[in-house]
Amino acid sequence: MKPLVFQTDFGMEDGAVSAMYGVAYGVEGGLNISDLTHGITPYDIWQASYRLVQTVRYWPEGTVFVSVVDPGVGSTRRSIVVKTATGQLIVTPDNGTLTHIKRKYGIAEARTIDETVNRLAGSEESYTFHGRDVYAYTGARLAAGIIDFEQVGPAVAPESVIELPVVEPVCRGDRVEGTIDVLDIRFGSLWTNIPREMFKSLGIQVGQRAELTITNDTRTIYRNTMIYAQSFAGVFVGEPLIYVNSLDCMAVAINQGSFAKAYNIGTGNSWHIAIGPDSRA
Amino acid sequence: MKPLVFQTDFGMEDGAVSAMYGVAYGVEGGLNISDLTHGITPYDIWQASYRLVQTVRYWPEGTVFVSVVDPGVGSTRRSIVVKTATGQLIVTPDNGTLTHIKRKYGIAEARTIDETVNRLAGSEESYTFHGRDVYAYTGARLAAGIIDFEQVGPAVAPESVIELPVVEPVCRGDRVEGTIDVLDIRFGSLWTNIPREMFKSLGIQVGQRAELTITNDTRTIYRNTMIYAQSFAGVFVGEPLIYVNSLDCMAVAINQGSFAKAYNIGTGNSWHIAIGPDSRA
Amino acid sequence: MKPLVFQTDFGMEDGAVSAMYGVAYGVEGGLNISDLTHGITPYDIWQASYRLVQTVRYWPEGTVFVSVVDPGVGSTRRSIVVKTATGQLIVTPDNGTLTHIKRKYGIAEARTIDETVNRLAGSEESYTFHGRDVYAYTGARLAAGIIDFEQVGPAVAPESVIELPVVEPVCRGDRVEGTIDVLDIRFGSLWTNIPREMFKSLGIQVGQRAELTITNDTRTIYRNTMIYAQSFAGVFVGEPLIYVNSLDCMAVAINQGSFAKAYNIGTGNSWHIAIGPDSRA
Repeated sequence: MKPLVFQTDFGMEDGAVSAMYGVAYGVEGGLNISDLTHGITPYDIWQASYRLVQTVRYWPEGTVFVSVVDPGVGSTRRSIVVKTATGQLIVTPDNGTLTHIKRKYGIAEARTIDETVNRLAGSEESYTFHGRDVYAYTGARLAAGIIDFEQVGPAVAPESVIELPVVEPVCRGDRVEGTIDVLDIRFGSLWTNIPREMFKSLGIQVGQRAELTITNDTRTIYRNTMIYAQSFAGVFVGEPLIYVNSLDCMAVAINQGSFAKAYNIGTGNSWHIAIGPDSRA
Repeated sequence: MKPLVFQTDFGMEDGAVSAMYGVAYGVEGGLNISDLTHGITPYDIWQASYRLVQTVRYWPEGTVFVSVVDPGVGSTRRSIVVKTATGQLIVTPDNGTLTHIKRKYGIAEARTIDETVNRLAGSEESYTFHGRDVYAYTGARLAAGIIDFEQVGPAVAPESVIELPVVEPVCRGDRVEGTIDVLDIRFGSLWTNIPREMFKSLGIQVGQRAELTITNDTRTIYRNTMIYAQSFAGVFVGEPLIYVNSLDCMAVAINQGSFAKAYNIGTGNSWHIAIGPDSRA
Repeated sequence: MKPLVFQTDFGMEDGAVSAMYGVAYGVEGGLNISDLTHGITPYDIWQASYRLVQTVRYWPEGTVFVSVVDPGVGSTRRSIVVKTATGQLIVTPDNGTLTHIKRKYGIAEARTIDETVNRLAGSEESYTFHGRDVYAYTGARLAAGIIDFEQVGPAVAPESVIELPVVEPVCRGDRVEGTIDVLDIRFGSLWTNIPREMFKSLGIQVGQRAELTITNDTRTIYRNTMIYAQSFAGVFVGEPLIYVNSLDCMAVAINQGSFAKAYNIGTGNSWHIAIGPDSRA
């Protein structure tokens, strides 16, 4: 028996998630089920992809994730199960949900779900609830060991798994440049795609100031210097800082405030961030 | 050991739900507990009833549901446990929470809770926390097999279980008419009480347009035609559609938009919807 | 194996809580994990302390709580585990999170966490995720019985555990005076720090009216009489009432309305409440 972890954009306000639990416990009552999050912004595949890469590696090998953010439900998009290079399984529509996992950890194997066998009995007339009838059901059977990975369906090339467009961080002169991937909403922090190692090449030490520029398309939204700190405790309350987040990438915050709210910062490929040494020092 | 599933209007912001978990695990540490939802609008019995009917049938026989939306706590309303015709148990105040279950699946047996035996020891002075001291406690003892259904308390007639007023859908000429029962809040869809079978009698095929009128009391809120689609993938992004929801009833949505927000649609018996063939075709 | 219960201010919108679950299941796959709440207002230690005291006593002896509301992460604040006088363990930064537990139930023993042994392997470079790498990991090892309380680290004096400033309720003439500790947000009730016993000394009986004054600093926000009721059912819908809450303290509400919203009531030591007999009777 392996842990089973659900992620959706269904929210927890109605019975949709509990129906998935019910179907899974119907497969095997002894399953260990928990939630990654059901608060993904509706239809936001990028966010779903990001939350997976943020979480998956902390789970034991063999853990089965089921991620259902599925704007194309009922279309011809494939339903797949992948085995990550780190040994977890992820059951999901093949719509870009695996973008970050594929790039950061790698996909070892992939299979499409054969729905003629891997589908809740009696659900064939339901076209909108793949999350429950196919994904939760298949995830439960995998986690319970009723089927193994090979019985999911035909193997497909891992390279064929769909990726959303991604802008790569770059080192340009004495600056590193990247995009704002996602917000830590509750704490108002910006999570960038700039890896710690790339930032380290600038030679800025903990406690020193860096200069940071944020632009949205061509408009400059923010330019100032701030301390590179090991943690929030390295700056005053209300002071901004740059730090390394739990994904080993650079992040920007205001200690006990919200950087995102303070400057109306958004996310996505049009939100650029550049970090370099303090130009006035 | 049977699964135990909690539903309340308590929210998850404080410790009330966790206290229910604690009491249940105090009864039997090996219980399998999960949540239907704790996001029911405070005091909204109708919503609680709807979420139960949406979920219960996906759970194995013998599953014990505890639903606490209880504006009359401390009054003389009965506390009951029912066995549904589909074999699940539901522990709840008898205040209309079982309206949809009773009508759609049927109640096989009902018993009132004898609180002289089925109540957490030492809680007799607490008048406001029946959810924890009586319902969670009794649900846990049932799920753990410490008591069986007969030991809940005296049997009462299933017909005596209280129902909220319900308006029935009807076929009138070449139109079907019903009410908007509930919103799929996150996706802005309208869930009506019109069953698929009744809609099918109109002879409208998948891919054809239907004409839809929504009125609130006497005011027309919306009138237009839209495609009857098997799923959201059957229409463009931003286009409205009629489809069959997971309860096998007709629903209305905008693909990747919010129909409810677009036209300020509410729910309840004053919100009428009529569906017929395209009158301009 | 003992239950493991998590509380944080992380919210459930991203993967931070699920990463804690993953780390804990990595310690022992058979653990029983659930959530107190992850909806603590960011950095609000007082609220975290209050939610613990509201919940802990309903859980079996030996239950392990992990509470992470940690504005000082990365500072020199201690990481501790305490054994409450009622027999539960709580893993937390020593920043005031145990204020209410210490005062109401008492702390029997306390130990600081020796992070050279009680820390997820490979996480030494992470400075911001103590919640996952130290607290969840240590809590899981305690709940699984892999380490016992003595192996947490060196014992420290229970008296040294940090407390936030607390204003005590007092009896003054024929009135009791206290503060508004917390809101029951969803139902808009005010939870005061006035114990039932202190209120009882006024001799006001169930069904009688009491006079209630709320002041914020020097400004009077509300003054009126209302019924002391055993439960919401003791007053009309829309009528205010005083009642005894689940912590055995006095609370104020409007039946099926929100007292807090009606009069813009806040919480904390500047929000005073006085209750006495009806001065116009």
